Amino acid sequence: MCAQILSTQPYKGTRDFYPDDMRLRNWFFGKIRQTLERAAYEEYNGPMLESLDIYIAKSGEEIANKQTYNFADRGGRMVAIRPEMTPSVARIVAAKMGELNYPLKWFSIPNMYRYERPQHGRLREFWQLNVDIFGCDTYEADLDVIESAISLLLAFGADETMFRVHINNRRFFNDVIAAICQSDAEHARAVSKVIDRKDKVDRESYEKDLRELGLSDAQIAQIDGLYTMDVKSATALCPDSLGSKELVSLFEMLEKTGLDKYCVFDFGIIRGLDYYTGTVFEVFDEAPENNRAMFGGGRYDNLVGMFAKNAKISGVGYGMGDVTLESFLLTHKLVPDLNRGETKVLVTRFEDVPYEKYLEVVNTLRESGVTASIYVGTKKFGKQIDYAAKGHYSHVLIMGASELESGIVKIKNLESREESEVALDALSEYFN
Amino acid sequence: MCAQILSTQPYKGTRDFYPDDMRLRNWFFGKIRQTLERAAYEEYNGPMLESLDIYIAKSGEEIANKQTYNFADRGGRMVAIRPEMTPSVARIVAAKMGELNYPLKWFSIPNMYRYERPQHGRLREFWQLNVDIFGCDTYEADLDVIESAISLLLAFGADETMFRVHINNRRFFNDVIAAICQSDAEHARAVSKVIDRKDKVDRESYEKDLRELGLSDAQIAQIDGLYTMDVKSATALCPDSLGSKELVSLFEMLEKTGLDKYCVFDFGIIRGLDYYTGTVFEVFDEAPENNRAMFGGGRYDNLVGMFAKNAKISGVGYGMGDVTLESFLLTHKLVPDLNRGETKVLVTRFEDVPYEKYLEVVNTLRESGVTASIYVGTKKFGKQIDYAAKGHYSHVLIMGASELESGIVKIKNLESREESEVALDALSEYFN
Repeated sequence: MCAQILSTQPYKGTRDFYPDDMRLRNWFFGKIRQTLERAAYEEYNGPMLESLDIYIAKSGEEIANKQTYNFADRGGRMVAIRPEMTPSVARIVAAKMGELNYPLKWFSIPNMYRYERPQHGRLREFWQLNVDIFGCDTYEADLDVIESAISLLLAFGADETMFRVHINNRRFFNDVIAAICQSDAEHARAVSKVIDRKDKVDRESYEKDLRELGLSDAQIAQIDGLYTMDVKSATALCPDSLGSKELVSLFEMLEKTGLDKYCVFDFGIIRGLDYYTGTVFEVFDEAPENNRAMFGGGRYDNLVGMFAKNAKISGVGYGMGDVTLESFLLTHKLVPDLNRGETKVLVTRFEDVPYEKYLEVVNTLRESGVTASIYVGTKKFGKQIDYAAKGHYSHVLIMGASELESGIVKIKNLESREESEVALDALSEYFN
Repeated sequence: MCAQILSTQPYKGTRDFYPDDMRLRNWFFGKIRQTLERAAYEEYNGPMLESLDIYIAKSGEEIANKQTYNFADRGGRMVAIRPEMTPSVARIVAAKMGELNYPLKWFSIPNMYRYERPQHGRLREFWQLNVDIFGCDTYEADLDVIESAISLLLAFGADETMFRVHINNRRFFNDVIAAICQSDAEHARAVSKVIDRKDKVDRESYEKDLRELGLSDAQIAQIDGLYTMDVKSATALCPDSLGSKELVSLFEMLEKTGLDKYCVFDFGIIRGLDYYTGTVFEVFDEAPENNRAMFGGGRYDNLVGMFAKNAKISGVGYGMGDVTLESFLLTHKLVPDLNRGETKVLVTRFEDVPYEKYLEVVNTLRESGVTASIYVGTKKFGKQIDYAAKGHYSHVLIMGASELESGIVKIKNLESREESEVALDALSEYFN
C-alpha cells in the first residue's frame, strides 16, 4: 500500500450501497422477482461487457459511441459496458433460437452504465428491470406485459391514484396520420416526425412545420383533437387499421379485467420513430410533484435480425430503472420500515462465561430460524447494547456467569424494553 | 439496424445465463444470503467501475494494469472494472468510518472482471461472495468468518467428507521460522520467501536456496516437519508467539464447538507474503478428482489505510467465486432438480372461450400463491401441452367451452399424468 491518500468518493454517477441501502434494494428487487415469477416470467442474465458492434447495429455509431463506456481490449476488439439489455437479449435469444420454448416470458435485472451527465433520476450506473415476451405477436402478449407492470406496482401497495399507464399504438399512429392527411406513407412519415418533436418546439414552429408539409388548419386541429380523445373516438378515425383493432382489443380486455382504471389512451405516447412497431406505453407517476413518465416499453419486431438473417422473432416488453422505482416508492411512502418486524438477537458476551457457551446459544437460535449473532469482541456490556440498538437488533440475550449456572437467561426486547427469563432448553421455542 | 450479421457468442470469458442457468444461480446465491443473514451478516455493494488508483495502491501498477480492464474516461480519469472487492469495501468503510457500527459483519456478491486467459474454473467475468468482519482483531472474529464458510457449505448439504478448512497463522509462520533459524526478522523474511515459493520450484533448488541463506540440513528438516505436525506440536515450537496463541485459541474453540472435524492445521497455507497478517485459511474440495483449494481468506490489517491516514481498521474475511462453488456443488451432486417440486400451472387456451375468463382463472391461482400463466398465443392444444412440458410446468389447466359452462375445469398433473376435475370456485384451495 502506498502512502498517497485516495478519495473515498465513488466514481461519478455511481453509488455505494451500505447495508441500509442494500436492504431497500433487496426488498424491492425481491418483490419484483416474486411478482414476475408468480406470473411464470423466468429470469436470465448476460455479461456486463459486450462487443460494441451490437450497440452500433441497434443505435448507430454516433449514439453507441457517445452513450456507452467503450474501449479496445488487448486483442483490439472494441467492447462496451452494456447501456441497455435489448441487444444482449437479442443475442442470447439468437444464439439458441431453434431450441427455445416460445413464447418466452423473460425478465432480468442487470446493472448497466450509460455515459451521461449525472442528474436527478439519471445516474451512470443503474440497474434496470427488463420484462419481455418473445415469439408472440398478438395483443395477448401486450396485455400480459402491461398487466405485469401494473401487478408490480400493486405489489408495492400502489393504487390507481398513484400511477397511470398511458397507451398508444404505433401502427394506429401511422394510419391515423395518413388518414387525416389523406396522404401516402412517405408524406405521413414526414408529418409524424414533426408530431414526434411537438413537445420539444414551441407551438408556432410546430404549426409552421406542418403547414409547410401541406396541412390545413382543419387537419392540424384534427391532430390536436387526438390528444384528448378516448380510444373509441380515436380508432373510429381509421377503423380498418390493424393498429386500431389492436388498440380496441387491448382496451376491451383491460376493461373486462378491471385493469382499465390504471390505464388511459394517450396519443402523445410515441417513444421515438424507429424502434417500436405496435403497442407503446409509458407508466406515469401521478404525484403532482413528480408527474412524469417513470418507465415504458412496447412492441418491436425483428429482435434477432442483427444476429440471424431472415429470422423474425418479435417482442413486447419494458425496462424500468431502479432509481425511478425507488423515487416512486419513496414519493408515495410505499417503503415500510425494513429495520423493524424481523427478530434479530444479539447474544451479549461476558468474559467470565466460556465463549463456546455463547456459540451453543447462537446456534440454537439460528437453527430455530432466528437471525442471531454473538457480540464479536470484548467491549463492555453498555457498548454491546448500543451496538445492538444501532444495528437494528430486536432483542439482546444476556447470559452472565449466574445465568449460565441457573440455566435461565434474560432476553430483552429492545423496542418494548420488556425483559423475560427463558430457560436455555426452551430457547428454540421462545421466538416461534 | 444494419445488414451486417453479428456474432451471437458472448464476449470471451463471459457467460450468458439462460433461465435454467439463472435458476441455479438464484438458488445458490439465495442459500448463501439466507445463511449469512441468519448469522447477522449484512449485505452491501459498490459500483462496478472504480478509480484505477485504488487497485494500484493495493497491488502495484504492474498487476493493476495487467489484471484489470481499465481505460481513460472522457475526463481523462483512469477507471477500472473492479477485479476484486477489497479496495472498494475499504473505500466504502473509509467514507463513513466514524459513523459505522463496529464490528461490521458484512457480505457482498458483486460481479467483477479480471483480464486473464479464460481457463477451467477461471473466467473473465465472475461473481464473488465476499464475507468480512471489520473492526474486531481477536480470534472470535476469525472463528465467526470460518464458521460462516463452513455453515454455507453445510447449508448446501455438504459434509466433512467433501471439504476441509486448512488453517494457518501468518504471525505464527513468521515466528516459527525465526525460531527455527534463530535469526532476526529480516533474515526470517528471506527464508519465508523461499518457503512461500516451495511448490513452484523443485526440491533441489528449494534446498539450495535455503542453504544459501545459511540453513543447516537439520533446520531444513525441522521446517519440513511443520507440514505434517498438528497444531499443538507446531505451536509448541514458539509458545510465546501471539500467532501461536491465536492458533491455539482458535483450534480450542473449533474443537469445543465440534467444528474441528471440518478443519485441519496446515503450515502450507501462506497466501502470499504481503497482505495477510494473522489467521489464514483455504477451503479444499476433498473430491479426489477435484482436490484443490476452492477459496480462502484471512486476517489483514489497516484496511482503510490508503483512504484515511493514521486510521486503522482491521478485517478478516474471504472471497468465494461462483464458478468454484458451482463446480463443487456439481461434483458432489448437491444440486437438486430445480425444475421440480414447485407448482407451476399453465392455463391452456381455446379460441371459443373469452380470454378474460382465462385471466380470471390465472389471477385466482396467482392470488392463492401459485405460479401460473395463460398460454400466451393461439397455438393448438397439443402445442400448448408441449410448451408446458418443456417449460417445466407441473400442471395444465383445461377450460374449454363445456368446462366453462359447467364451472368445472380439468387439471392435469404432468408428472403423474393424473387428471382431476375442480370446480372453478374451489380453485384457490386446490393447490394449497
